[in-house]
Amino acid sequence: MTFLFNSDARRGAIFAKAFAEELPDLPFAMDAAAVDPDAVRYLITWTVPEDLARYSNLEILFSIGAGVDQFRFDAVPAKVKIVRMIEQGIVRMMQEYVALAVLALHRNLPAYLAQQRAGEWRDIPQPQAQARRIGVLGLGQLGQAVLDRLKPFGFPLVGWSRSPRQIEGVTCLHGELGLEDMLAASDILVCLLPLTEETRGFLNASLFAKLPEGAAIVHTGRGPQLDHEALVAALDSGHLSAAMIDVTDPEPLPSDRPFWSHPKIILTPHIASVTQPATAARAVIDNIKRHRAGLDPIGLVDRTRGY
Amino acid sequence: MTFLFNSDARRGAIFAKAFAEELPDLPFAMDAAAVDPDAVRYLITWTVPEDLARYSNLEILFSIGAGVDQFRFDAVPAKVKIVRMIEQGIVRMMQEYVALAVLALHRNLPAYLAQQRAGEWRDIPQPQAQARRIGVLGLGQLGQAVLDRLKPFGFPLVGWSRSPRQIEGVTCLHGELGLEDMLAASDILVCLLPLTEETRGFLNASLFAKLPEGAAIVHTGRGPQLDHEALVAALDSGHLSAAMIDVTDPEPLPSDRPFWSHPKIILTPHIASVTQPATAARAVIDNIKRHRAGLDPIGLVDRTRGY
Repeated sequence: MTFLFNSDARRGAIFAKAFAEELPDLPFAMDAAAVDPDAVRYLITWTVPEDLARYSNLEILFSIGAGVDQFRFDAVPAKVKIVRMIEQGIVRMMQEYVALAVLALHRNLPAYLAQQRAGEWRDIPQPQAQARRIGVLGLGQLGQAVLDRLKPFGFPLVGWSRSPRQIEGVTCLHGELGLEDMLAASDILVCLLPLTEETRGFLNASLFAKLPEGAAIVHTGRGPQLDHEALVAALDSGHLSAAMIDVTDPEPLPSDRPFWSHPKIILTPHIASVTQPATAARAVIDNIKRHRAGLDPIGLVDRTRGY
Repeated sequence: MTFLFNSDARRGAIFAKAFAEELPDLPFAMDAAAVDPDAVRYLITWTVPEDLARYSNLEILFSIGAGVDQFRFDAVPAKVKIVRMIEQGIVRMMQEYVALAVLALHRNLPAYLAQQRAGEWRDIPQPQAQARRIGVLGLGQLGQAVLDRLKPFGFPLVGWSRSPRQIEGVTCLHGELGLEDMLAASDILVCLLPLTEETRGFLNASLFAKLPEGAAIVHTGRGPQLDHEALVAALDSGHLSAAMIDVTDPEPLPSDRPFWSHPKIILTPHIASVTQPATAARAVIDNIKRHRAGLDPIGLVDRTRGY
């Protein structure tokens, strides 16, 4: 019975230390070539290895990142549980980034940056927080944590998810029917959706048209959800006012793409949130203990939903 | 007995409506030329009028802004109470701006903006919030409100004020002796001090030298507190990493000054926080009611301290 760590050595060392303390009976391996494949019960990785079939007794495949859209599910035997990474480090970083992005757009930072470049000292009309409605697409652990951080500022909050949710202080809408109302009530729209076949291309011209005049976008979901040309067109027409974008397709974004130099876009290189090894090791250890106790791991993927 | 409003007509109309509802017995005037000067008991203004002496029965001089450094105290008779503007709109805007600035500096936004301009997709090493110490200079109502908003993010917080304070979850230091320790513990330093003779030129080369290597600055105090040349030198030497600056001296900042184009500076045109007429009218009305009941108004200035 072995745990195989298939990622970089720096993070591996932090995992190894935590496993030695918390699960001393579970052999921890970082070298796939040196391991007995039949002994491997747990594997953590970013992408599914080509030779996954050799681990015939694999019970859980852990993603080292928050998403599992990089996994080809059909390459993973049905009896293997697929588990997303849900750990406090990822959550806290996403809270920081989205709070930063929402406040930056609320306080007109892209326009002030443009004024700074132009040497222009001029105040821009500023709505108060209670007049700036924030909409969050995706109400999983990240979406809920982000809404928690936005609450004290006094923004009216609306959230949307595939299935119904109830969150105190947040107007929750769901499904296809709820989407239109949610978009119409989002002066700043935050995308935290997982990448699935349903959400590919989700942020497109038709969606932007349903947002209020002057709305702004925060994109911290996955790159393939956003139609770049549609965003640039909506910004250039003035229908949308600004955007803060952390994920693109492809990544890195090629240097000839318009996001790099668009005056209404702040672009960051997929740094909103990354797995923090110490808290991630703790989350994986807790999940192995749950699994041994006959419980489902936290972050168990529903293959039919895709997340 | 009259209240004289000496500021712009747009805000005046909002004040007039609130006064008519809440203090219908108190005549409200906006035209100094048409008023009986002997009747004026209350005056709200940004600067002290040249002809202040004509209001011989003046009881309270209200500042329409958060600061009173624009008042020449010696032009105001000793029997007149001077009152700063403390109102929820100013407080909330300052919470937003400082949270935005702290998160922007914590998440290396100035460096990512420079990378965006250069077409460079590269992640920058990111400390977690618990390893990023935030120091706030000034622990009055604004300083405390700002610290409240920063708490949920998990930053270690330290605050400094002239006289001792106790704030839950914040290491409070005070006086000249406490300043050095506070600066040494501030990876991001926020200045919210009032402008007085003691704080003029406070943010200078000697202070910057006491900050940790790589520290960053948020300046939302008053322009004359900051030595521009010293800041540019500390940024250029690499001792400081970045700054977000909302106040300068003079304002507007002349176009030939280095802040406009410095790659490590985000400059905004004194928009962090401005008086919101609806909440300001409410605060002034409450203070007149307190005054009539024999209580000191909220925000009463101690002329010996200067704020």
